[in-house]
Order: sequence, then C-alpha cells, then structure tokens
Amino acid sequence: MGSALGRAWLAAGHPLTVWNRSRERAASLAAAGARLAATPAEAVAAGGLVVGCVLDDAALEETLEGADLGGRDLVSLVTGTPGQARARARWARSRGARFLDGGIMAVPPMIGRPDGGGYVFYSGSAGLFEEHRATLAVPADTAYVGGDPGAAALYDVALLSAMYGMFAGVAHAFALAGEEIAPTDLAPRLAAWLGAMTASVHGTARRLESGDFTTGVVSPLAMQVAGSATLLRTAEERGVSPELLTPYLDLLRRRLAEGHGLEDTTGAIGLLATGRAPAEA
Amino acid sequence: MGSALGRAWLAAGHPLTVWNRSRERAASLAAAGARLAATPAEAVAAGGLVVGCVLDDAALEETLEGADLGGRDLVSLVTGTPGQARARARWARSRGARFLDGGIMAVPPMIGRPDGGGYVFYSGSAGLFEEHRATLAVPADTAYVGGDPGAAALYDVALLSAMYGMFAGVAHAFALAGEEIAPTDLAPRLAAWLGAMTASVHGTARRLESGDFTTGVVSPLAMQVAGSATLLRTAEERGVSPELLTPYLDLLRRRLAEGHGLEDTTGAIGLLATGRAPAEA
Ligand SMILES: NC(=O)c1ccc[n+]([C@@H]2O[C@H](COP(=O)([O-])OP(=O)(O)OC[C@H]3O[C@@H](n4cnc5c(N)ncnc54)[C@H](OP(=O)(O)O)[C@@H]3O)[C@@H](O)[C@H]2O)c1
Ligand SMILES: NC(=O)c1ccc[n+]([C@@H]2O[C@H](COP(=O)([O-])OP(=O)(O)OC[C@H]3O[C@@H](n4cnc5c(N)ncnc54)[C@H](OP(=O)(O)O)[C@@H]3O)[C@@H](O)[C@H]2O)c1
Repeated sequence: MGSALGRAWLAAGHPLTVWNRSRERAASLAAAGARLAATPAEAVAAGGLVVGCVLDDAALEETLEGADLGGRDLVSLVTGTPGQARARARWARSRGARFLDGGIMAVPPMIGRPDGGGYVFYSGSAGLFEEHRATLAVPADTAYVGGDPGAAALYDVALLSAMYGMFAGVAHAFALAGEEIAPTDLAPRLAAWLGAMTASVHGTARRLESGDFTTGVVSPLAMQVAGSATLLRTAEERGVSPELLTPYLDLLRRRLAEGHGLEDTTGAIGLLATGRAPAEA
Repeated sequence: MGSALGRAWLAAGHPLTVWNRSRERAASLAAAGARLAATPAEAVAAGGLVVGCVLDDAALEETLEGADLGGRDLVSLVTGTPGQARARARWARSRGARFLDGGIMAVPPMIGRPDGGGYVFYSGSAGLFEEHRATLAVPADTAYVGGDPGAAALYDVALLSAMYGMFAGVAHAFALAGEEIAPTDLAPRLAAWLGAMTASVHGTARRLESGDFTTGVVSPLAMQVAGSATLLRTAEERGVSPELLTPYLDLLRRRLAEGHGLEDTTGAIGLLATGRAPAEA
C-alpha cells in the first residue's frame, strides 16, 4: 500500500522522501524519483507532512520512536481500531505534532486512479486536513468524518465488518448452489439482488433514529423467523453447514421471543450490545 | 401475497377464481371482480391454470388434497426447499397435472408494478411456463431457470441466504456505530460500499469454475486473517458482541491453517460442505 501511495504522489509531481524497513522494497519508488531516507528520523526531518503506512499501529509507533515530530503533521494510514487512533493522536500531540487518522477503503490497484472508486476516511485535526487536503486527495478521494481521531477507524471497521457479513452470505449461497447452478449463472443474480437489498440500510437507519421498528413493516419478524426454517432445511438438504447463517437467524429468533413479532429486523441490532463498558485501547 | 397476486391479475383483466381458508380475507378480491370458490376443488375446477400461494408446501398439499388436478397446470408460489419442490412436482404429475415451482423475489408492495424490481424464479415444466408466460409475467418479471423443479427454490434460497448474511453484517456495523455515528450518516456509506463490493461475486464465480484461487489476488487470505484482529478488537472496544462476525472469520482462519495464505476468500467456500450426502425431502 505504501508503494502505491508513493507512486501516486510522485506521478502528481510531489517531492517525496521514503523510508521502508526493508530498504530494497523502496527501490522502485527511488527509481521513480523519491529520495530514500536512511532512518525514519531522516524521513520525518525532510518535510512537514509525514504519512505512515506500515503493518499496524504498533509498527508505526516503533518506526517513529526515534524521530522528532515537533511541528510535524502526522497522518496514519494504518488500519486500526478507534481506540488505537485516539491513543496515537494523544501520543502525537504529546510530541508536538498534529495528527490525522486515515482508513483506506481501497486495495492498492485502486490507488492513484481518480475513477477507481476507492477513498480514504479521515478524522482528527481539521487544520491538518484542510491544509493538506489537495495532497491527501492525490492517491484517492477523501472523506473527512470529524475531529474525533477515532471516527475514521470506526467508519472503516464498520464498513469492512458489513462487507464480511455479505461475503459470508455469498459464500453460503455458492456452497448451496454446489454443482447444480453454475457459479457464473448465480453470480449476476446474486449481485443484482444484493445490490437492490443494500437500499434497506436507509430504512434501518431511519428506524434506529426514530426508535419506531413497526410502522410500515412489509416483512414482519414473525414471518421472517418462520421462513428461516426453509433456509436451514435447504442447507441440510444440500449438505451445507449452516454455521454462517445461524447466528443472525438466532438473533432474530431471540428478538421475536421477546415479543416483537411485528417489527422488522432493526430491533435485533440492540441485542448485540454486550453491556460491557467500552474499553479504550 | 395471494391478495397482491390476485389484484395484479384482476387489474390486467384476467378472469380469476379465488379460494382462501379464511373466506373473509378474500373479500377485497371478490369486490375487485374475482369469483369466490367455496372449496379448493371448486377453484381448481374453474380453469386450467391453478396458482397456489399459501403459507408453506404442507399447507398447499392439504389445500389441494380433495381437488381433481387431472389436466391442470399447477404453479406453486409457496416458498420452500428444492427437495420440497421436486416432491411436489412428482405428486402433481401422479395426479395428472403439469407442475411449475416459483420463488418470489419480492414483497407484496412490489407485485403488479412493472418497475418494482421484483421477479419470480420459475422451474419445472417448460411447456407450462411457455404456455402461460404472459399471464405469469403480470404480477412480476419471470426468470425461468430450468426443467429441474428444484432449481427455482435453490436460486430463491441462495439469494435470501446471501441477503441475510449482508443483513447480519449491516446489523454489526450499526451496532458498532452506536451513539458515535448517526445511523443516517453511516447508511449512505454502507450502501455505497456494499453496492461496490457486490461486484466481487463475479470474481468468486470465475475462481470457483476455474479452480484457481490465487492468480491476481490483491487481498491474500493471510493479510485478511491478520486484519480481522482489528475488526474483533473494535467490536470489543465498542461493547459489541462478535457473534455475527466470528463464524466467517473462523472459516477464513481454517482455510489459512490448511496452508492457503496466498488465496483470496474463495477457497473457504469448500469448507462449508458437511460431507453428509444431500438428503431429498
Ligand atoms: N493492501 C490493502 O489492500 C490495504 C487496504 C487498506 C488498508 N491497508 C492498510 O495499509 C497498511 C499497510 O498494508 P500493506 O498492504 O502495505 O501491507 P504489507 O504489504 O504487508 O506491508 C507491510 C509494511 O509494513 C512494514 N512493517 C511491518 N512491520 C514493521 C515494523 N515493525 N517496523 C517497521 N515497518 C514494518 C513492512 O516493512 P518490510 O517491507 O520491511 O516488511 C511493509 O512495508 C496496513 O495497516 C493495512 O491494513 C491495506
Ligand atoms: N410476504 C412476502 O413478503 C413473501 C415474499 C416471497 C414469498 N412469499 C411466500 O408466499 C407464501 C404466502 O405468504 P404470505 O406473505 O401471503 O403469508 P400470510 O400473509 O401469512 O398468508 C398465509 C396464507 O396461507 C393460508 N394458510 C395457512 N395455512 C393454511 C392451511 N393449512 N391450509 C390452507 N391455507 C393456509 C392463510 O390462510 P388464512 O387467511 O386462513 O390464515 C393465508 O392465506 C409463503 O410461502 C411465503 O413464503 C411471501
């Protein structure tokens, strides 16, 4: 990811100093015009805007330990938790730096392509974001989501978690199809259906905000739980494990058992709260 | 659902005879011009095309038990398993009827609206489908998926199962957001991201068909499993149960443990096979 980001800035004519733990992996960036720093401290000393993109938050701390961050603008493009981003922001401030956290919603091939569809959530210092907005927008579109440094990570992880849910559903669907439906026959139907069903998130959001889970419901929970028997029975007929399906169906069943058969599925979301006080990283 | 179907056919000028167990629930259809039959047998005797839409397959059998199906074309719009559809097809044939099974991909408000986006999977007798194609297309678009009477149910259940996976992911995402991100701020991001990610099903389908799970992979399994720690840690920080997330992440971990770190997620699908011979209903 660091290579893709670097290539995008170089292609846009930005002066760039890079450091990578394994020096040889930065060779292609050097060949494309980047200055190669011998240490992270040297790279940090080279300019006002410091972008960190290493494995994780712990690697970022380790990398920057010996560098003088005073007066610098630090942007972390490391994927992490909201708590880690908030702690890293405090850490950076205590070293005299402004801090912005980023959550990259793209894979490397999407970086540096304006129409690639990728973008980066940013949160933390609004001053830093405004000042470097144009530079930050070079590798991918930007979405600033607030002054809380943890906000970008929360958006990032929420979207990735939802995506893995969808992937789980898709995995189950292809497993059901087995030898009977060709995967490339199922795929366009799946993509169209899931695409259409994404619109339901707006209704869920409105219900969560209003607290009204029953008005205008077309598929009541009681009907959905009854219908889920067909899904489980089909999995059994097809020799497919229901392990990816049961946790959500069980959650709906628990909400129904609490007497909410006329709701849609929104009310089940509250059951996911563990009741444990959120712990900060 | 039966009321919505009936209204659509009446609105299109089709003669219609209806029967419903609770007679009063068919009153609005009668008011709209339908003939009300006193028994299922009387309704079946009224015309060549018989459409059944009751609670489930068992209710359909019970309903039609005393009717003479000889020479009739029976369409079941009951949601059921592929095995149930195949058994119902044999049952119908043994009573002298042609049989078509349908899986409705719509909720009642989408019925009878050409641009509503809903449609019905059909499978079974191709002759029946061709002969009644225009009539069947009145309530919703049709998609004939083959002569095996179980095919429509398999498509139907595969799509619904995938949808519940997505709903599970969405529920987890809204739970994570909690009080920190307004649901209506998260919703458009979620819808756009999930919509973009639905395109991945085509790559998954091609890989399943070719058996090549590694060429051109941009997010290797090893990286995804490592990254999943951030998702789980975020859930813990936010006081959100990981129960909807863990089964799929565990599946990816199992595939990785078998030595497939350079694959994408496709190889994990095979782990869902229980190895038990598919049982026919
Ligand atoms: N790739 C994606 O699709 C993607 C998408 C969104 C976000 N991200 C995020 O971007 C970040 C980088 O991901 P990547 O795909 O570039 O991973 P990667 O290809 O595995 O590269 C990891 C980088 O981190 C460095 N590193 C690891 N441990 C280090 C340490 N202790 N000290 C200093 N450097 C260390 C590695 O240096 P060496 O070269 O010396 O090993 C390498 O440059 C991650 O936080 C990832 O979550 C990636
Ligand atoms: N609604 C949807 O969003 C939707 C979407 C796709 C597919 N479907 C499928 O469409 C079918 C009907 O669903 P629905 O939404 O109309 O359900 P519903 O509103 O609960 O109606 C059930 C119907 O089945 C009848 N019934 C139940 N048990 C019966 C029995 N033993 N003998 C005779 N009739 C019986 C009921 O008669 P009474 O009026 O006497 O109770 C009623 O007409 C189901 O298979 C469902 O899965 C529904």
